[in-house]
Amino acid sequence: MNLKVIAFDADDTLFVNEPYFQETEEKFCALMSDYLSHQGLSQELFKTEIANLELYGYGIKGYILSMIEAAMKISNNTISIETIEKITEYGKELLQKPIELLDGVEETLAALNGKYKLVVATKGDLLDQRRKLHNSGLGHYFHHIEVMSDKKEKDYEDLLKRLEIKAEEFFMIGNSLKSDVLPVLNIGGHAVHIPFHTTWEHEKISHKVEHPNFKALEKITEVLPILL
Amino acid sequence: MNLKVIAFDADDTLFVNEPYFQETEEKFCALMSDYLSHQGLSQELFKTEIANLELYGYGIKGYILSMIEAAMKISNNTISIETIEKITEYGKELLQKPIELLDGVEETLAALNGKYKLVVATKGDLLDQRRKLHNSGLGHYFHHIEVMSDKKEKDYEDLLKRLEIKAEEFFMIGNSLKSDVLPVLNIGGHAVHIPFHTTWEHEKISHKVEHPNFKALEKITEVLPILL
Repeated sequence: MNLKVIAFDADDTLFVNEPYFQETEEKFCALMSDYLSHQGLSQELFKTEIANLELYGYGIKGYILSMIEAAMKISNNTISIETIEKITEYGKELLQKPIELLDGVEETLAALNGKYKLVVATKGDLLDQRRKLHNSGLGHYFHHIEVMSDKKEKDYEDLLKRLEIKAEEFFMIGNSLKSDVLPVLNIGGHAVHIPFHTTWEHEKISHKVEHPNFKALEKITEVLPILL
Repeated sequence: MNLKVIAFDADDTLFVNEPYFQETEEKFCALMSDYLSHQGLSQELFKTEIANLELYGYGIKGYILSMIEAAMKISNNTISIETIEKITEYGKELLQKPIELLDGVEETLAALNGKYKLVVATKGDLLDQRRKLHNSGLGHYFHHIEVMSDKKEKDYEDLLKRLEIKAEEFFMIGNSLKSDVLPVLNIGGHAVHIPFHTTWEHEKISHKVEHPNFKALEKITEVLPILL
């Protein structure tokens, strides 16, 4: 391999993310428990999120707006203003969660430091992702952070163009087969998958990935024998 | 000048933006006219926006959330859920406004095309800014779009690092003296100001700019004799 850039997904690859969203969803469901079952509420919220994805994109601000919209719809506009107020508070709390680094991340970055151009390639709200990277204390390992509006093949092609490298010089590390692995393999790049214990419904795929440019790993430190 | 990158602000430099926000604010004020004067409502909304800027950053999603929050605060939580619903509709409309190119933009880009690396350097919601650039039909002129979480000196320094160029190789074109001109001059870059007929309160400055690396222009096409 003649690699130039190693890209790391951020959420649930470098630090904890999905559990914070799930915790917020629990609070949303508790708030709205008069209207539907927990499962019914989760489904309605998910449907609203997906319907808004094209307009709002990924990230917490769109998630807050989708919670507000779902609460109005589920209650047929009978919820109280105080409920809306609570939802915006939950959203603001979600934007201020502490950063919890995942095992082996710092060790991996320290070992790769200076040997490749390291970048973060993540979806979500721009300011939120920059703040998290800054607060993680990992910022100095990275050349820069690429906040992507989505992680489809086209988005990775744009990224390569911006980085001025070829697909075969690009190596992606992430916890989502759908977003971090498959599109990268499809355009000719390299990718490894590091599973996280929980995955957002929207990121799940049902089939197994097999590809010469792909490896399924258990822990992030296992990239070191591949890359060093 | 030994320039490598010419960066264009997007909103109110390439295409119309602030008038759409002002139109939305008018609708917000009409909706809330039982509670305060037009001026009082505008002030409360602006205060809420600024208070949320650190957490939400720039862009329409944060603006929608601030309108909702301001409406709850101004009414002491007595507004109806239908009002909240209206505000989210106004927000979604704002995200889908047509692109109106400003005079001379296409002519300027066509003339500079191939002679420099051209980039867009803008604040706001990531997906929204990419969508606007795409819908503008101008995308093919630009190497890429840099959506910045803010436009302070530190943000421009990060941008130069990402572009791997020196400050004196960077030339910024924009309608905001505060965001597009002063920070660029302060770090050693070049900048020109193209005024737009209306400016967001937060972007206004009171003093005159004089600097050897700065020119105040009237129209965007006036950059051509400077750059060609």
